[in-house]
Amino acid sequence: MNHQEALTTYIAAFVSELAKTGVRDVVVSPGSRSTPMAMIMAEHPELNVHIHVDERSAGFFALGIAKASGRPAALLCTSGTAAANYFPAVVEAKISRVPLVVLTADRPHELRDVGAPQAIDQIHLYGGHVKWFAEMAPPESSHEMIRYARTVCARAYAESVKAPAGPVHLNFPFREPLIPKLDENLFESRERPEGFVSIQQGELALPDSVFREMADDLSSFQKGIIICGPHEDSRFAAEVVKLAETLDFPILADPLSQLRSGKHDKALVIDGYDSFLRTDAAKEALNPDVVIRFGSMPVSKALTIFLKENKDSRQIVVDGGAGWRDPSLLSSEMVYCSEALFCEKVQSFAGRREPGGEYSALWKEVNEKTKLVLAEAGSAIEMSEGKLFLQLAELLPDESTLFVGNSMPIRDLDTFFHNNDKSIRAMGNRGANGIDGIISTALGAGLYSQPLYLVLGDLTFFHDLNGLIASKLHNINVHILLINNNGGGIFSFLPQAGEKKNFELLFGTPLDLDFEHAAKLYGAKYDRAETWEEFERAIKEGYGDHSLKVTEIMTNRDKNLAEHRELWNRVSREINLFLKGE
Amino acid sequence: MNHQEALTTYIAAFVSELAKTGVRDVVVSPGSRSTPMAMIMAEHPELNVHIHVDERSAGFFALGIAKASGRPAALLCTSGTAAANYFPAVVEAKISRVPLVVLTADRPHELRDVGAPQAIDQIHLYGGHVKWFAEMAPPESSHEMIRYARTVCARAYAESVKAPAGPVHLNFPFREPLIPKLDENLFESRERPEGFVSIQQGELALPDSVFREMADDLSSFQKGIIICGPHEDSRFAAEVVKLAETLDFPILADPLSQLRSGKHDKALVIDGYDSFLRTDAAKEALNPDVVIRFGSMPVSKALTIFLKENKDSRQIVVDGGAGWRDPSLLSSEMVYCSEALFCEKVQSFAGRREPGGEYSALWKEVNEKTKLVLAEAGSAIEMSEGKLFLQLAELLPDESTLFVGNSMPIRDLDTFFHNNDKSIRAMGNRGANGIDGIISTALGAGLYSQPLYLVLGDLTFFHDLNGLIASKLHNINVHILLINNNGGGIFSFLPQAGEKKNFELLFGTPLDLDFEHAAKLYGAKYDRAETWEEFERAIKEGYGDHSLKVTEIMTNRDKNLAEHRELWNRVSREINLFLKGE
Repeated sequence: MNHQEALTTYIAAFVSELAKTGVRDVVVSPGSRSTPMAMIMAEHPELNVHIHVDERSAGFFALGIAKASGRPAALLCTSGTAAANYFPAVVEAKISRVPLVVLTADRPHELRDVGAPQAIDQIHLYGGHVKWFAEMAPPESSHEMIRYARTVCARAYAESVKAPAGPVHLNFPFREPLIPKLDENLFESRERPEGFVSIQQGELALPDSVFREMADDLSSFQKGIIICGPHEDSRFAAEVVKLAETLDFPILADPLSQLRSGKHDKALVIDGYDSFLRTDAAKEALNPDVVIRFGSMPVSKALTIFLKENKDSRQIVVDGGAGWRDPSLLSSEMVYCSEALFCEKVQSFAGRREPGGEYSALWKEVNEKTKLVLAEAGSAIEMSEGKLFLQLAELLPDESTLFVGNSMPIRDLDTFFHNNDKSIRAMGNRGANGIDGIISTALGAGLYSQPLYLVLGDLTFFHDLNGLIASKLHNINVHILLINNNGGGIFSFLPQAGEKKNFELLFGTPLDLDFEHAAKLYGAKYDRAETWEEFERAIKEGYGDHSLKVTEIMTNRDKNLAEHRELWNRVSREINLFLKGE
Repeated sequence: MNHQEALTTYIAAFVSELAKTGVRDVVVSPGSRSTPMAMIMAEHPELNVHIHVDERSAGFFALGIAKASGRPAALLCTSGTAAANYFPAVVEAKISRVPLVVLTADRPHELRDVGAPQAIDQIHLYGGHVKWFAEMAPPESSHEMIRYARTVCARAYAESVKAPAGPVHLNFPFREPLIPKLDENLFESRERPEGFVSIQQGELALPDSVFREMADDLSSFQKGIIICGPHEDSRFAAEVVKLAETLDFPILADPLSQLRSGKHDKALVIDGYDSFLRTDAAKEALNPDVVIRFGSMPVSKALTIFLKENKDSRQIVVDGGAGWRDPSLLSSEMVYCSEALFCEKVQSFAGRREPGGEYSALWKEVNEKTKLVLAEAGSAIEMSEGKLFLQLAELLPDESTLFVGNSMPIRDLDTFFHNNDKSIRAMGNRGANGIDGIISTALGAGLYSQPLYLVLGDLTFFHDLNGLIASKLHNINVHILLINNNGGGIFSFLPQAGEKKNFELLFGTPLDLDFEHAAKLYGAKYDRAETWEEFERAIKEGYGDHSLKVTEIMTNRDKNLAEHRELWNRVSREINLFLKGE
C-alpha cells in the first residue's frame, strides 16, 4: 500500500473513532504539518471544525466548549511553537479537571533535533500537565496499525473523561507528502462499525456500611456546615441540598458551585459569608464542629481564614476525583467518593433532623441581615463594580450563563451575587486562576450555553483580545461587560498598595487603551455605560441579539477600594449590633 | 532575622548579582507572588524594568532585546499560567540560541499540589526546552544562602550565554507576606562587591595541526561552495569573506546571514540562488564537490534540494555550538569549533588561490543574470509582495534593522532582497519558525536596534497584536509593513492548494479584519499604500519618526502565486538561454 493510502486510512480510522467516542468539536489552527488530519476532520459529517489562528486562544476556546458541553473537545495544530501556545489552556484544563484531547502534528523522526524548520521537541511537551501522553506510530495501514489508531483514540477519550477529567496529548509524526486521498468511503469500516472499544466509566464509591457509619457520625453533630466550591456536575445541587436538609447543616455556596442559582430549594444556601465572615463577632458565633467540603476551594479569603481559625473542627473533604484539594492543610478526612453519591447515601442513612435548629438559624439570620445591608447600599450607589454584581441576577435572563474573569470579578461575584431563582449557570477558569484566555473560554462556552454574559476587567480583556475573533466565525449571543478601571484593580486590596513609589509601574499598570477600537476590529457592537440606567438599557437591548456585544463600564480603582471597605464596614456594624448589641 | 529581612536580603543579593553579570533589561509582568522580586528590581539603578501585561508577548519582547543587544534579557512573572505563557518564546530561544534568564515566582512548598489558587507545577515547567533549571531555596539570609543566591545567579547567566546560548529557568518559592523592606543600602555588599564569581567563557577550538590539515584538504578542491545560514556573530562576516577569497569558493548567503548587507566585500556573495537553483541547467552546471556550511539551515528550499541532489559531495558543517544542524542528514563531517576561528585559521593556513576561477565565475555570472531578470521584472510591476522586497534595500536608511516574519516574508526576503552596501541588520525568528510573537520580538529588538522595519503578513500580525502595546510603553522607531493578503499566503504554494473543497476554511483562513482599528487601539500611525509611490512616500515620511507606524499593503494570494511563478519562469528561461543556448 502506498504512502498516501496508508496516511489516509490510518488518520481516517482515528478521526472516525474520535467521532464515535462522542467528540463533536475540534478546534483547528491552520498549519502545514497537520494538513492530513485537518482535511480528514473537515470531511467528517459529525465533527464541527472550528478554525482559530491563534493557538493560545484556540486552546481556551476548546476548554470553554468542553466545560459547557460536558464533552471533551479536541485540538489540532501543526508542529512547532503552535503546540507550545496550547500550554496555558492545558495547564488550566488539568487543574480544573476539564477533558481535552490535544492532537499535535509533528515532523517524522528523521527531521527531529536536526535543525529542521518548525521542528521542536514535542515528546511530553506538556510534562505532567496532561494526564496521558502518547507518541503515535507513523501512519501505516496494516490491520494491526488501524486497530492501534482506533484503540489509542478510544483510550485518549476515556483517559480525558476519567475522574478527575483532564487533558491528554497525542503527538502524530507525519511524513511528506501530506495530502490524503479523500473519497466517499473515507470513514467506512467493516470491523466494529459502531466503535472499536467502548469504555464503562466507573465512579468512586464506598460500601454502604461506611456510608451508614458516616451518617451516624455526622448526625451526632449540632454544629456542622457544608461548603461547596466550584462544581459542574448537574446531579450535585439537588443531592447536596437534600443532605443539608437532613443534617440541618447550612451550605456555604461558592458563586461557581451552581447552588446560588437554579430551581432547588435555597433555604439553607448561605451566600453572604464572604462579607460577614470578616467580622469577629460572626466568626465567634458561628464556629462549626464539623465541616464537609465539596469541590475545589472556594474563592472567599474570609472563608479560608474562618476555616483556619477552626482548625480543631473536623474537616472532611469529599472528592470524586481523589485529589488533594486542601490548600490550608486542614482536612482531617479525605473521602474519595463521587460527591453526588456521597450526598445521596449519607442522606439516606441519616435520620432526618428537625429543621430550623439554633445553629443553622443563626447562619441564616446573619446571612439575611448582611444581604439586606448590601442591597440597601447598592440601591444608593449610582454605579460601581459592586453594584453591578449585586443587581446582575435581576437583569440577566433566565437560562443564561454568567462567565466571570479572575482577579476582582470572581471576588465581586462572591461578595455581591446572591441567591436567585433563575437558572443561571456560573462559570470561570478557577483551576489556575489566570487572567489569560478568559474571552476564548467564554466564547467557547457560549457555543453550548447561550445567552452568555462575560464580566471581566480591562487587563483580562486585553490579555485575550485575540479570542474575540471567534465571535466572527460563529454566531454567538455573548455580551461582554467590560469593567475598565485602567489597570489591575486587585492590587489596591493588597499590601503593596501601601508602597506608593513604584506601585503604578509594577501593579497598577494602566494600559490607557480605548477598547472601542478593539470592539470595532472584531465587529462587536460597542457601548459605554456611565449610569446605571444606561447599563440596564444596554443589557436589555442585547437580549436575543445573536452577536457579540461589548458594554464598557469605566470605574476607578481607588474609589472601588473605598466602596468595598465602606460596604464591609456597614455589614460589620450591622452584624455586631445584631450579635452583640454593639 | 525576621521574614521580611530574609526575603529582602536574599532577593536583593540575587538582583544585585544579576546586574553585575551585565543583564540590563528585565521584562516584568504584573502579579502578586512576584511582588518582592519586582519591587527590588525596580529599585536597582542599572536595571531597566519593562512592564508587559501579556506574558506571551513579554517572552518574545525579552527574546528581541536579547537578540539585538547580544546580552541575556531577564523575565519575571507571577505563579500560575503566567509562566506557561512564556513557553513559545522559551522554545524559540532554545532553538535559535538566544540567552534568556526566566524567573518565575512560585507558591512555597506547602501550597503546592493542594489546590491553592494560582498554583501550578512549575518544577521543570519548560522541560528540555531550557538549558538549565533550578528550584531555588526559600529565602534565607544566612551567609551561606546569600552566597547561594549570588552563585546561582552568576551561574544562570553563564549557562544562558555558554555556546549554544539559550534560556535558563529559575523558580522562586515566596511565602507571604511578600513586601520587601526597601532601604538605601539594599544592594550594598561587603563581600566581593564587584560580583561574586566571574566566568571566563571559552569557545570551541581545534589544534593548529587540524586546521592546517583542513586547509590543505580544502585547497585541493576546485569546486567548493560555502553556505552561510542565519548568523549573529559580528566577527563572522569579515572572516568568512576572507576564507572564501582564499579558497575562491562562492558564498551562498541566507538573508539572515548578515552577509548580503554590510561593509565587507560582496564579490563572492551569491544572493540569487533561491531563484536560479530551481533550474536544472543551473544545478547541473554548478554541482560542488565540497560544501562548507555555517549557521542554521538556510530558508531556501531550492538550496536544500540542490544539497540533497549533491549528496555525494563532501558536506562539512561547522558549529561553534556543537549541535546537529543537518535536517537533510547530509553532513559527512561535523566540525565543532567557533565559526569565526575556523574561518580565520583555515584561511591563514591555506595558500591563496588565483581569484576568478571558472567555477566561482560561473556562480557569479548566473547570479548576476538572475538578479537582472528579477530587477527588470520588478520595475515593471506596479506593486507586489516580491517587488516590495526587491526594492526594500534601496528604501531603507543605512544602519537600520529589517525584521521579517516567517512563512512568506522570510522566503520573499530570500528570493528578492539582494546584496547592498548599507549596514542593514536582518533579523527573524528562525528557531522554530513560528508565526507567534513576531511583533514583540521586533519591538524588543527595536529597543537596541533602531530604526527598525518589520515586514510581516496579516496572520502573523494578528497572532501577536497584543505585542503592539510595548510601543506605548517605549519610544521606539519601528515601522511595520503589513502585507495583508487576507489569510495564509504560503498555503497557495503548497500541494493542498490543488484541493479546493475546504481550502479556504482550513488553509486560506481569511480573517477579514480591518487592521486600521488595531493600529488606532495602540496609537500607531496608520496608512495604506495602494501604489508603489504611496509605499515609498510612507517609508520616507517615517524616517526619524520615533513612534510606531503601520503601513498596510493589500495583496491577493492567487495573484501573488502567479507572479512568483512568472518571475521564476523568467529566470529559468534566461538561465537556460545562457547555459545551454536554449
